[in-house]
Amino acid sequence: MINAVILGAGNVATHLFNAFQETENIKVVQVYNRSKKKLAYFEKNTPTTSTISEIVEADVYIISVADDSIGSLSKKLLFKNKLVVHTSGSVAINSISKNNHCGVFYPLQTFTAGKKVDFKTIPLCIEAKHNDDLLLLETLAKSISESIYKINSEQRKALHIAAVFVNNFVNHLYQKGEEICKENNVSFDILKPLIVETARKVAELSPINSQTGPAKRNDLKVIEQHLTDLNTIAQQDIYTLLTKSIQDTHGNKL
Amino acid sequence: MINAVILGAGNVATHLFNAFQETENIKVVQVYNRSKKKLAYFEKNTPTTSTISEIVEADVYIISVADDSIGSLSKKLLFKNKLVVHTSGSVAINSISKNNHCGVFYPLQTFTAGKKVDFKTIPLCIEAKHNDDLLLLETLAKSISESIYKINSEQRKALHIAAVFVNNFVNHLYQKGEEICKENNVSFDILKPLIVETARKVAELSPINSQTGPAKRNDLKVIEQHLTDLNTIAQQDIYTLLTKSIQDTHGNKL
Repeated sequence: MINAVILGAGNVATHLFNAFQETENIKVVQVYNRSKKKLAYFEKNTPTTSTISEIVEADVYIISVADDSIGSLSKKLLFKNKLVVHTSGSVAINSISKNNHCGVFYPLQTFTAGKKVDFKTIPLCIEAKHNDDLLLLETLAKSISESIYKINSEQRKALHIAAVFVNNFVNHLYQKGEEICKENNVSFDILKPLIVETARKVAELSPINSQTGPAKRNDLKVIEQHLTDLNTIAQQDIYTLLTKSIQDTHGNKL
Repeated sequence: MINAVILGAGNVATHLFNAFQETENIKVVQVYNRSKKKLAYFEKNTPTTSTISEIVEADVYIISVADDSIGSLSKKLLFKNKLVVHTSGSVAINSISKNNHCGVFYPLQTFTAGKKVDFKTIPLCIEAKHNDDLLLLETLAKSISESIYKINSEQRKALHIAAVFVNNFVNHLYQKGEEICKENNVSFDILKPLIVETARKVAELSPINSQTGPAKRNDLKVIEQHLTDLNTIAQQDIYTLLTKSIQDTHGNKL
C-alpha cells in the first residue's frame, strides 16, 4: 500500500485522485489546496487541508498545480527527504526543492473537467533520481495504467513540444475546418468521421506514409483554386505554409 | 434493385464495389477501366471491360477516376440521357458531359488500399439536377451508409477544402510530432492515445471550446522556450504561425 498526498485540486489532480480511488494499492491520505473552495469535491472521500503545516506523512507527495507554482510550492513544504513529484510535461525535475527527493509523474493526455477518463490507456512518463524512488513511481503508475515510460527531463520536454503539435495545433486546424464549414453553410458533422479515421490511422501507419492530398501530389491547380476560395488571410496563411511544408517533406518543391 | 456500372478501378472504386457487394439492393453489373491490369481484382465477381463501346446498360454509372479525367471520360461515353455521377470532392457537377444526366456521389473519408472500411458511418454527399436522379442516389447511398447529406457543388467545394485542413494538414502535424520525437529519442507511441482523444473530443465539444496549450493561455515564456528548443526552421515556422493564429482567434494578441 502506497500512501499519497495530492497537492492541487485542478483537472489533473482530480483525475489522478479518481483513478487512485479505484485501486486498492494506493491510498490518498490527504488533498492539499491553497484555496479551500476547490477542496469540496474531495472532502467526502479523504481528509483535506489548505494549511501547509497540516500536511500529513506519506510515501509520495504529488504536486499538481500550475507550472509556475511547482517550484515555490515545493519550497514551502516543511518536511524533508521525502519523495515529491510533479505532474507537468514542461517543468524540469530540478524545479522541485532540494529539501526533498524529486520526481516526475506525467500523464500524457488531454483532460476535460467533468469527463471521466480511462487511465489504463494513458501513458505515464516517470522520472526520479534515486532507484528506490523510481521503483515507487513505477508501482504507483502500474496501479492505474498499462502504459509506463521512463523518460528523462530532456525527452519529456521534447514530448511536450510534440504534444503541442499533435494536440493544440491539430485542434486549431479542426477549428479552422469548422469555420470554413460555417462560412459555407455546411454541417461540420460531415467531417467528424474523417477526423477520427485520420487519427486512428496513425496507430497502423507512420504519418509520413499516409500523407495524401493536393500538396503531397503537387496538384498546383487545386492548390491555387483552394487559396482563391478561402475567405480569410489567416486561413490562406495556414494553407500556404502547411502546403509548402508538405511539399518540402515529400520532395515536391514549387 | 439498382444496376450500377463502376468506371475506374482505384481506391474509391474498389471500396465502393466492396460495399455494394454486401448489399442486396445494388448490383454492380460491370466494372470498366482503361487499363486491363487493374480489373483483375473485380473479375471474379462481376463482368469487366476496358473498351468504352462494351459498357452495358445500367441505372447509374459511377465514375471514380482521377479528378482531371472525369470530364473527358464522361464525354467518351456512347450512350445518352442516363444518370452519370462522379465521386470527387472537388470537381463540379457540371464537369460531366451534357449528353447524360449528371450527379455526384461523394464519400467523405480517407481510404487506404487493402484496408476494409465500414461504409455505414461514412458520410455520403449526393447531388443531382433532377429530382428522380436525386432519389435514386439517395436509395443507392442508404443501401450502404447511415449518413447521407444533400450537398450542392459550392458546399462540397468548401467541405473538400475543410477536409484538407482536418485531414492532410493534421496528418502533416502528426508527422512533425513524430519527427520531434525521433530527434529526441522518445517513442512516438507515447503520443498516440493523445492523438486519438484529441480527435474523439470533437464529437462532443466544438474545437473552439476545447482549445488548450501555451498559445491559448498566452504563456509567452513557454512559447519562447519551445521555439528555442525546436531543431528546424520548418518546425519553428509552423509553431510561430499556428501559435499566432490561436492567439488571434482567442483574443490574445502578442
